[in-house]
Amino acid sequence: MNDAYISLSVTDAVHINTRTKAYAAMAAGEPLRPFEIERRPLGVNDVLIRIKYCGICHSDIHQVRNEWGGSTFPMVPGHEITGIVEKTGADVTRFRSGDHVGVGCMIDSCRECNPCLDGYEQYCERGPNFTYNSFEKDGKTPTYGGYSGTIVVDQEYVVRIPPSLPLDAAAPLLCAGITTYSPLKHWKVSPGKSVAVVGLGGLGHMAVRFAQAMGARVTVLSRSPKKIVDALRLGAEDYFSTADPATFQKLVRRFDLIINTVSAKLDLNQYLELLQLEGAMVLVGVPPEAPEINAATLIRQRRTLSGSHIGGIAETQEMLDFCGKHNIVSDIEVVDIGQVNAAYERVLLSDVRYRFVIDCQSLK
Amino acid sequence: MNDAYISLSVTDAVHINTRTKAYAAMAAGEPLRPFEIERRPLGVNDVLIRIKYCGICHSDIHQVRNEWGGSTFPMVPGHEITGIVEKTGADVTRFRSGDHVGVGCMIDSCRECNPCLDGYEQYCERGPNFTYNSFEKDGKTPTYGGYSGTIVVDQEYVVRIPPSLPLDAAAPLLCAGITTYSPLKHWKVSPGKSVAVVGLGGLGHMAVRFAQAMGARVTVLSRSPKKIVDALRLGAEDYFSTADPATFQKLVRRFDLIINTVSAKLDLNQYLELLQLEGAMVLVGVPPEAPEINAATLIRQRRTLSGSHIGGIAETQEMLDFCGKHNIVSDIEVVDIGQVNAAYERVLLSDVRYRFVIDCQSLK
Repeated sequence: MNDAYISLSVTDAVHINTRTKAYAAMAAGEPLRPFEIERRPLGVNDVLIRIKYCGICHSDIHQVRNEWGGSTFPMVPGHEITGIVEKTGADVTRFRSGDHVGVGCMIDSCRECNPCLDGYEQYCERGPNFTYNSFEKDGKTPTYGGYSGTIVVDQEYVVRIPPSLPLDAAAPLLCAGITTYSPLKHWKVSPGKSVAVVGLGGLGHMAVRFAQAMGARVTVLSRSPKKIVDALRLGAEDYFSTADPATFQKLVRRFDLIINTVSAKLDLNQYLELLQLEGAMVLVGVPPEAPEINAATLIRQRRTLSGSHIGGIAETQEMLDFCGKHNIVSDIEVVDIGQVNAAYERVLLSDVRYRFVIDCQSLK
Repeated sequence: MNDAYISLSVTDAVHINTRTKAYAAMAAGEPLRPFEIERRPLGVNDVLIRIKYCGICHSDIHQVRNEWGGSTFPMVPGHEITGIVEKTGADVTRFRSGDHVGVGCMIDSCRECNPCLDGYEQYCERGPNFTYNSFEKDGKTPTYGGYSGTIVVDQEYVVRIPPSLPLDAAAPLLCAGITTYSPLKHWKVSPGKSVAVVGLGGLGHMAVRFAQAMGARVTVLSRSPKKIVDALRLGAEDYFSTADPATFQKLVRRFDLIINTVSAKLDLNQYLELLQLEGAMVLVGVPPEAPEINAATLIRQRRTLSGSHIGGIAETQEMLDFCGKHNIVSDIEVVDIGQVNAAYERVLLSDVRYRFVIDCQSLK
């Protein structure tokens, strides 16, 4: 089975240039295996992208395992896509063949609600059309992600990768990057601000790089003392182990902003106490159990607990341009598509520094 | 016992004009009874105030019963104080005899930390000197509150009551008023904003009046359907019963700001879902158990959960001036000091619309 590509039943109107190999989970929790999908015919506003690389996001695993509910199968995961434009529709003005481009978590949205009109497509009131495990705008055609050879996306939802950035290490910027960049910008991180990053993984290591490049004084809070070397290399000025209770005594009222990238259930009140007056803790991961929050901890210093969800399309482009200017990419380990199931196991063990990226040319 | 005033042991340097009758709890949970206290000698920056009225705040009951821990006895509660200046110290420039003044939750603070220097004395890093159940700046002399005949306070912590406001109905502005005004201002309530007030009690009824006067569209969310009449009278445009589950369906993403005045444990996630993009829910009461917060609810619309603690001295003056301009006071029921224990029982039953105010002249 692993070596055979299975055809998806498609209409008679086969467009050979939009048929592509992929890897899919056929049911919840099954290993990914070879699969073949049909991308939609190129519309006048569409861009056909030859996918070069696709990052492995922890949310891929959650959705393949249907841990958030509502997963649809077959599922081709992947929303950290970089590639090269192969063909453009008649009305495409923003891209041309050969351009280095990216596709993140969304391939469309309603374009009519206030969030969409304000450039916050990720908060689309009808829900964005996600890159996989979702539907096209017709509401019934499933979307398939970046563990594949090509993808067809409306030009408005395609972003430009600065030519100075390698396409492999740039791939995780499309989700891990924007997920951490967006709250740092929204909460106005700038020189003089004191920022803590909780958890040093795929998201956390990007948050450290961005916050440092924005001029903040960055502290990494992580359970694992061995992360100190990486924390400092990535640009943090301080590292404290959260396994040491003294950390929470030492750092009381130290930070303006805490970006919490940990999805495990933590005692968030301990972390909230580390915020100074009007400080904010922003959650970018969803713990399996809802954490308990002491109202008094918030009240005492007018603290804020918030959450942030990826970023809008224009903001994603802004982030990529920022990365081009500051030469920021992800730390990655490139794998062939055949290693994807093994890579998933290692992600679950946090055994990756800091992001797996699939070389999609290995699909051939 | 109830009719006898008990002398507190004082130093030999008795200043007859600063000796005053009061009501105190002698131990945790005991009924209040007559007591006599010695106010400090008038310092050069001090104002001696003849107390006319003092509101009964739910926090008075919590502290008398030592429900927050750390209460000290004898305790003379009361931090919603209005009165008339009787005498001023040699260097007092801001007040003179006959002025209508108020004292709220704080009678001093460190005056040196960043929050104090920024006018946020309520967030003083060393903790403010509270009006009762706290200590003077010497760290050892207990402070006694407004259930008494006079009080001596540094002029910097005294505020001016606009002459147009009655001193009885103005008293609750010093705590219930500023506690709700401060978050409404901080979260920039203005015309066009949609504000929900959860709970229509001492705090909630003030929040409705302020938000309406600031131009917001105000909705009251309360369990008790009979509160609808008062909600509309106070200035709300809408009322919804939180006992009706349909309320939480109807109002999804409706509000920019929710002021939650309820100290009981609610399912805060239901309320957070009522916030639109980047909306905030601000807690001004402390539930006995920490509520559980779903990270996804915050993340999906970049929502915020915050808390807010009374207000600074300058902001309290601003609030009083706002009340003078908009003719805002509290709905009150005036009681004599001898009724205070009965009033406490009624507060616990939420049987007050909306604040008890003690006529301190009844101490005579």
